[in-house]
Amino acid sequence: MRVMTLPWKFIVEWISAGEGVIRSVEKVYASSRSEYQEYLIAELYGLGKSLILDGKVQSSTSDEYWYHEALVHPVMLSHPNPRRVLVIGGGEGATIREVFKHCSVKEVVMVDLDYEVVHTCRESLSELHQGSFYDPRLELIISDGRKFVESISGVFDVAIVDVVDPIEGGPATALYTEEFYRALKNTLAENGIIVTQAVSPSLHPRVHAIIRNTVARVFRKVSSYITYVRSYNGLWGFVAGSDKYNPAELDATKIEQLISTRICAELKFYDGYTHQWMFSIPKPIREVLSRIKDYATDTNKAVLQL
Amino acid sequence: MRVMTLPWKFIVEWISAGEGVIRSVEKVYASSRSEYQEYLIAELYGLGKSLILDGKVQSSTSDEYWYHEALVHPVMLSHPNPRRVLVIGGGEGATIREVFKHCSVKEVVMVDLDYEVVHTCRESLSELHQGSFYDPRLELIISDGRKFVESISGVFDVAIVDVVDPIEGGPATALYTEEFYRALKNTLAENGIIVTQAVSPSLHPRVHAIIRNTVARVFRKVSSYITYVRSYNGLWGFVAGSDKYNPAELDATKIEQLISTRICAELKFYDGYTHQWMFSIPKPIREVLSRIKDYATDTNKAVLQL
Amino acid sequence: MRVMTLPWKFIVEWISAGEGVIRSVEKVYASSRSEYQEYLIAELYGLGKSLILDGKVQSSTSDEYWYHEALVHPVMLSHPNPRRVLVIGGGEGATIREVFKHCSVKEVVMVDLDYEVVHTCRESLSELHQGSFYDPRLELIISDGRKFVESISGVFDVAIVDVVDPIEGGPATALYTEEFYRALKNTLAENGIIVTQAVSPSLHPRVHAIIRNTVARVFRKVSSYITYVRSYNGLWGFVAGSDKYNPAELDATKIEQLISTRICAELKFYDGYTHQWMFSIPKPIREVLSRIKDYATDTNKAVLQL
Amino acid sequence: MRVMTLPWKFIVEWISAGEGVIRSVEKVYASSRSEYQEYLIAELYGLGKSLILDGKVQSSTSDEYWYHEALVHPVMLSHPNPRRVLVIGGGEGATIREVFKHCSVKEVVMVDLDYEVVHTCRESLSELHQGSFYDPRLELIISDGRKFVESISGVFDVAIVDVVDPIEGGPATALYTEEFYRALKNTLAENGIIVTQAVSPSLHPRVHAIIRNTVARVFRKVSSYITYVRSYNGLWGFVAGSDKYNPAELDATKIEQLISTRICAELKFYDGYTHQWMFSIPKPIREVLSRIKDYATDTNKAVLQL
Repeated sequence: MRVMTLPWKFIVEWISAGEGVIRSVEKVYASSRSEYQEYLIAELYGLGKSLILDGKVQSSTSDEYWYHEALVHPVMLSHPNPRRVLVIGGGEGATIREVFKHCSVKEVVMVDLDYEVVHTCRESLSELHQGSFYDPRLELIISDGRKFVESISGVFDVAIVDVVDPIEGGPATALYTEEFYRALKNTLAENGIIVTQAVSPSLHPRVHAIIRNTVARVFRKVSSYITYVRSYNGLWGFVAGSDKYNPAELDATKIEQLISTRICAELKFYDGYTHQWMFSIPKPIREVLSRIKDYATDTNKAVLQL
Repeated sequence: MRVMTLPWKFIVEWISAGEGVIRSVEKVYASSRSEYQEYLIAELYGLGKSLILDGKVQSSTSDEYWYHEALVHPVMLSHPNPRRVLVIGGGEGATIREVFKHCSVKEVVMVDLDYEVVHTCRESLSELHQGSFYDPRLELIISDGRKFVESISGVFDVAIVDVVDPIEGGPATALYTEEFYRALKNTLAENGIIVTQAVSPSLHPRVHAIIRNTVARVFRKVSSYITYVRSYNGLWGFVAGSDKYNPAELDATKIEQLISTRICAELKFYDGYTHQWMFSIPKPIREVLSRIKDYATDTNKAVLQL
Repeated sequence: MRVMTLPWKFIVEWISAGEGVIRSVEKVYASSRSEYQEYLIAELYGLGKSLILDGKVQSSTSDEYWYHEALVHPVMLSHPNPRRVLVIGGGEGATIREVFKHCSVKEVVMVDLDYEVVHTCRESLSELHQGSFYDPRLELIISDGRKFVESISGVFDVAIVDVVDPIEGGPATALYTEEFYRALKNTLAENGIIVTQAVSPSLHPRVHAIIRNTVARVFRKVSSYITYVRSYNGLWGFVAGSDKYNPAELDATKIEQLISTRICAELKFYDGYTHQWMFSIPKPIREVLSRIKDYATDTNKAVLQL
Repeated sequence: MRVMTLPWKFIVEWISAGEGVIRSVEKVYASSRSEYQEYLIAELYGLGKSLILDGKVQSSTSDEYWYHEALVHPVMLSHPNPRRVLVIGGGEGATIREVFKHCSVKEVVMVDLDYEVVHTCRESLSELHQGSFYDPRLELIISDGRKFVESISGVFDVAIVDVVDPIEGGPATALYTEEFYRALKNTLAENGIIVTQAVSPSLHPRVHAIIRNTVARVFRKVSSYITYVRSYNGLWGFVAGSDKYNPAELDATKIEQLISTRICAELKFYDGYTHQWMFSIPKPIREVLSRIKDYATDTNKAVLQL
């Protein structure tokens, strides 16, 4: 017997002080606060089962692959033979899920700060990780990502940074600075490649440009690229960096061929045309990228203004 | 480390299709759906720890006594010696808490439909019941209130109806009809008295009047009275009925004297002046009460239109 | 041809940072910003045509008389023969409308700060003022209320303060201090009486108590009383002060008699029982009033915290 | 003097019954209802001065060029020499503004249903039309678009359909059917080309596919393409159709060359790379396009489900 027909539990994702997206919460699976953040696992109207951290949707079953495949595959395919992969963040397990699709991968080290969130996702969000937490190639380390990368060197073919946006006072601002990228480069084996999520270029173009510029201070070849994620309320950006490889130099045909030979599972989002779409940046964003010269350091961090 | 400063989890309590009250959810204690209704136990900004059923705040620690003391004490003090008391509904245990404050009470039978909600409140909302579920004078029966009152006769000195509003399709519409009040009267010992919550006379004056008129078809002495409950977004109404006793005939001095001799615990809301306030109905509500002649039967129920 | 069925224009009245009331805007009559405040005249779902200042509903056709009759009549009837009346604020013209209902009134001086709002209400909100702006007994002065009361003495029988709440940084904080009430008293003829709106005792009990205490520093007889205003989301308070008269000392019978002999028009809200309701303060508010000893001065103002 | 710091006037753009975007209204320029729709011209937080029809943002100064340049230029540059252009809809004047940038254009016929909206935009939204309503090459006709195209033949080189989404009961459902596109084709001179806005492929992929399929029943060469419009809360789709020309066959270099020779004004969004971005459809949308076989006719219209 259902009485009310109007939805009554909502989350509001504030884009700014005067804009927000409201979504009806259909069912709550977990709602608590860890040492680091407030988390909610819930069925959201229109988006499906989702992980929300500090009010921001991180992953929704309906469209998370628009993000996770975009994050992982361009750099993985740019490297000729990625065997050891580092993932910083990615607590819900969807990033490592995509990494494990590459037949060449022998070892994945995932470093996440928040045991409680990782544990809760592993138990309650199998739709996202799809068992990848139990892949024997995984080493899961609960640790501060910055400290971890400063403690290791010369190991990884690919490093993937999948952490929350650099919000003022947030846990991730130290993972977007020149010092961090230098440490991250140092964890790489020769001719490694990195990628980081790089905020929304439609909502925060200046911060996206700063991340691109900061990576460019450390790596010779850098490229920005973008996807769209409905759950994130806009276009979404990434920055790849390497001294040798550049996914922007691969065309649609080459991508199709690499996928067919190097990926051992189905992809839902990424293919040759999608690659071309992601690397063809529309003019207004290119103009911001060419205009902004700033970069971030530990003493002058990039932060999103809500 | 707290990142977001704007609240992001809300409930909306719809007053109508174009009005609602939004409240930030600070902490979730329980959020699920029972056989009968969706329930949420949560800390709400401004209201404190609260029980919410199907989107409607039922009780908040900050002001529930404005409701529960108003519901219980006028009829309990009007009866000269209430020993056996029936409570229909009142799942969070605050109504029986007030009943047990009367020194004369020997036995309370509480009948609630929804075991899951009662159980969850008993475990997670001790702020409201304050242990009254464990009072040895209590007999708790999980049953349909209508069926229960049709199965028993001649027992109770006071009967208190504390159920949700008669919403279209809701679980309580059969607890506001003439047939129900006749059955309820039949459960009473000689010269018993009843009271029912009677919706908001500021938001739904017509339904309040119908409840008053319906009780008046069964009892010789009937009186409407009102309190204010911030958590309920307005004034709140009650209707008392008896063939012999009428709380409206008691003045402030008499109430003070009865409280001092018959109540064995502290009251936070009810006293002589408060009684006078509740029984002095403002003119616009009196005018609705005198204008509306309708009453409710099983075949012509009163229902709230949202 | 109507396409959307869901309402899409809303105002949110924030009660605090985590609570608010949302109301659908059905039709906009005026929406602009004066020198002093943002104003909106609009049809609101559930409330009717309304004046909204800086996000706060000031008057709605559906229930403004619960406020304006409560503000005006108790003090007007307490004075034996009110001929000259001062109204500070009351820009929509509903307060003077009620004052003019008293047959004894010869002259009303209304002092409002904001010409643009007064003018717009006069043109677009005749439902509220009902022509009272054109009553020949009215003298309308556009001026700062504080300056006006400091410039005049010994004139008025009754003074009515109908200004916005004392919000931090708002235009009215200087109209709630001891210095203001001393100046206001000085504008009165011998044995005059004043009343001020005194915020919501359910939402802001401490500020209500401070206003009461501040008036009590200036007048020998002071009384708090309360009504309920749906448009204001709660109970609403007033404070009356005089060296001689006290509306709290009038009973329901006396009020009925005074209304019948001294008021030349219909009342929708106020009568004897309503008077008794308003002056019977419920216990939790009385307890705040007896506990709070603070008062406001120009150097230590009372301000509402949202 | 500003009192409230929290925004209090909002519009909600409902994406579905459980999702919406809320935006603070900073300033209202016009708010009324025409014969056909409710309209609002307002400054929206984050978006700038905007036209909103029936609750849906149509154009915002901050990003309308992501839409209007995407709508107009691909088909205009595909045609070798567009002299006469038909625009159906486009009431705010931004579509004709882009058409007039093409040096070859001699005559533009704009047909819009709603005189009141067109007139209000012309007076109050010069930021959008930038004077194009006063271009001597314009003939503005207030008429039903469907009737107009059925009354004329053999005239236009390019026809552009810029009308609201096909919402159930809305004014535009008859402008998305096979019969409409046949009539529209009949208005074209030999080898003309058309384009229509084609809803959001991220929010409503099925309707986008139906529009593509419907145009494909009438024209031999059809292509879907997409942009992103923040004001529209997602990706946005278009469908171009012609028996001879296809913008999808033009590469970035060719586009750059055509812009430099044929466009007499600055573009902010469209260039070679942007063209490549728009015509590289990501895989999930391509899959919907290949799976859906439905098309729309006057007796079986496509409608968006909110």
